[in-house]
Amino acid sequence: MTATSPRRLHLNAFLMNAGHHDAAWRHPRAQPERVTDLRYFQQLAQTAERGLLDSVFLADGLALGGRVRHNALGGFEPLTLLSALAAVTERVGLIATVSTTFNEPFHTARKFASLDHISGGRAGWNIVTSGTVDEARNFGRDQHLEHRLRYERAREFLEVATKLWDSWEDDAILLDRERGVYADTDKVREIGHRGEHFGVRGPLNVPRPPQGHPLLVQAGSSEDGKEFAARYAEAVFTAQQTLADGQSFYKDLKSRLARHGRAEDQLLVLPGIAPVIGSTEAEALALERELTELQVPEYGIAQLSGMLGTDLTGLPLDGPLPELPGERDINGNKSRFTLVAELARRDGLTLRELIARLGAGRGHRVFAGTPDQVADQLEEWFTQGAADGFTIMPPHLPGGLEDFVDHVVPILQRRGLFRTEYTGRTLREHYGLPRPANRLAPAVAAEGRPA
Amino acid sequence: MTATSPRRLHLNAFLMNAGHHDAAWRHPRAQPERVTDLRYFQQLAQTAERGLLDSVFLADGLALGGRVRHNALGGFEPLTLLSALAAVTERVGLIATVSTTFNEPFHTARKFASLDHISGGRAGWNIVTSGTVDEARNFGRDQHLEHRLRYERAREFLEVATKLWDSWEDDAILLDRERGVYADTDKVREIGHRGEHFGVRGPLNVPRPPQGHPLLVQAGSSEDGKEFAARYAEAVFTAQQTLADGQSFYKDLKSRLARHGRAEDQLLVLPGIAPVIGSTEAEALALERELTELQVPEYGIAQLSGMLGTDLTGLPLDGPLPELPGERDINGNKSRFTLVAELARRDGLTLRELIARLGAGRGHRVFAGTPDQVADQLEEWFTQGAADGFTIMPPHLPGGLEDFVDHVVPILQRRGLFRTEYTGRTLREHYGLPRPANRLAPAVAAEGRPA
Repeated sequence: MTATSPRRLHLNAFLMNAGHHDAAWRHPRAQPERVTDLRYFQQLAQTAERGLLDSVFLADGLALGGRVRHNALGGFEPLTLLSALAAVTERVGLIATVSTTFNEPFHTARKFASLDHISGGRAGWNIVTSGTVDEARNFGRDQHLEHRLRYERAREFLEVATKLWDSWEDDAILLDRERGVYADTDKVREIGHRGEHFGVRGPLNVPRPPQGHPLLVQAGSSEDGKEFAARYAEAVFTAQQTLADGQSFYKDLKSRLARHGRAEDQLLVLPGIAPVIGSTEAEALALERELTELQVPEYGIAQLSGMLGTDLTGLPLDGPLPELPGERDINGNKSRFTLVAELARRDGLTLRELIARLGAGRGHRVFAGTPDQVADQLEEWFTQGAADGFTIMPPHLPGGLEDFVDHVVPILQRRGLFRTEYTGRTLREHYGLPRPANRLAPAVAAEGRPA
Repeated sequence: MTATSPRRLHLNAFLMNAGHHDAAWRHPRAQPERVTDLRYFQQLAQTAERGLLDSVFLADGLALGGRVRHNALGGFEPLTLLSALAAVTERVGLIATVSTTFNEPFHTARKFASLDHISGGRAGWNIVTSGTVDEARNFGRDQHLEHRLRYERAREFLEVATKLWDSWEDDAILLDRERGVYADTDKVREIGHRGEHFGVRGPLNVPRPPQGHPLLVQAGSSEDGKEFAARYAEAVFTAQQTLADGQSFYKDLKSRLARHGRAEDQLLVLPGIAPVIGSTEAEALALERELTELQVPEYGIAQLSGMLGTDLTGLPLDGPLPELPGERDINGNKSRFTLVAELARRDGLTLRELIARLGAGRGHRVFAGTPDQVADQLEEWFTQGAADGFTIMPPHLPGGLEDFVDHVVPILQRRGLFRTEYTGRTLREHYGLPRPANRLAPAVAAEGRPA
């Protein structure tokens, strides 16, 4: 993005089985019977691409939990699914969640390098540290690694992964058939990493990715999470309920960048929003009510118990929340805990009301309205210092994404807020982010950075 | 396969960058500039499917080694690549190599379950234990795990993976919108595994794969490897140089099945063959010579040193092999060591001759001839008790696979040895192998097994 081009917002479609609303699968417009069918996700990705969206995104967890009794689950491993989608799309970015707590950097770096090549430079990695003991129990541990230790491991993991991507210089492949030299091995280096958590000699067995590194994304908003994001992330997914909260988070995060030698435009803040879209406001509100009425209370209580680190089973649905622990005692998603606890306190919600409020977005902002009203909301946050773009969480799929692409995107385009064609090929180009220099190459200064 | 249908052979296309010959990338018909391009592999997979082949297969290693100076490397992580190929093919099976030594069973089981769903039941897993210290050094270990321990870990890994695939019954998904019940959680079980190497509570977070389990493939031919194959594998890739060796291996492996309660037709033996095809025998031999002349001796010596666990650098190319260690002292690929050592001894080969002999197939059988002569070779092994089918290793790609599909497959079809259309949808159906019963479901007897 040059100084003279107009500032444009970025849109990331968060794909989630039958939709983000926890009762979406029961809605007549949803297609839960297709959530294990590649063609379903292919259609979603192609819809996002038709709307010129920057990217599609898949969250991930490494345990089933009890969620599957009352909610449609596909559960495909995100990189596997996105790689299949790479083959049937041309431009849209592909962002996969992978945990640094339960993986090895060599595998993870290699898979993202592979996806980046396969997709022609469209791979992004949402870096998570995983928050639940259920996940630990699938990997030989009875206790979950402590929050701060998870972030320590994540930092070392990122150092190793970036070195592995940099272990090949961009021009290492010579392809000299005459002399029989395929690669200049002076430009392919061991990384010789020996740290607290990992020992990795390298080099990677895949050439440097088209984007240099895949786009690095982070979604934790705790203190550790924000510091990690300020150091490594190029896009941040975050849950913010009000404009004031959004502005405060935006300012906080951007202000941390300078300490790491980074400019403010090197990290994009993309708050989540679950838009419940109707052709009239009444229709949108009716859809929202309809989804709420389809909620299964046991499911809502189980989800809420997980978010709050507190077993709420058996408590009266029309009563208040019980006394909660402090954030410091939460070893899962700390920022989500605080957000939900504050939401309940601020609005004096009963358990039933809180479950209804969280149904569509699990703590992300929900907004019901017409396409114009949705566009107004996005414009307000974008122009008022709360967002560089948005993570769109359609309450039901595929219809909710189609409604957004067909009705909200054209309004954003008319207002000059969103692209009218893809001007780049890679995910970094869509997001206006530079291709990273190779830190292991001798002459970093000679490497091109976009103007 | 019923008793009355004619016995048909199976064909598995082993895809390898610019081709299996180590100098293929220098040949004018090869396209090494495309080995990091998805469309290249897409074209190869579609060629295999046009030929009605049972499957395509990708080998794997978890370290670069020094190979890249003189040979074209794609190096994509196999599951990532095969998932992309699943989206652009309809019928051909997709077999990925994944190591049990450097992975976690939860991840591996989940990825294969994902690929099996994404491909509509076409996933296969070539189970390897990884053979080099270079790989260990990318995963925090200075020494490679000892051969027998690797197989012990592999056995436990397989036990966990199969339990995870069986952690959902086939009919666990109810999709009862009215009652709000997506899955019958009485049919989704924890596996509670606590063993020597792994602790995995489960269940898997992906429903049972369409094939029940992906097809299980094994390629090690050591004593440990053969015992592992007899217990778990449904297809075995093997390197055998002569008909007599092929017959002896075939008989040995099949005779081990009864001890594990398995019938002989529950495991297919698919020896590798690198067919160097010409429209005349002279043309085929000329192509073979041409490829040999393109070999880079340093590369051949390095490869041979690896196979023999002996540094051969600096030895005279026209001299004999030095004294070698015994197989028991080899901690890598034991059976390949023995095959190469015996080949050199039997035919009294110099280093240069041995490198030429190994160039096209790395120890797999190489045969140069016309399409009819190649078909004769396949028919002989198939009818003389040495093979249930073949792993086809084209010396150069994409041309070598096209030649096989366009000229050898029609001959096999005319002889009644190979299918003239796909009759099944899944990889197991192509190979005539049963869908495994769910061992964790209470009424195993009630589960259907193909007649």
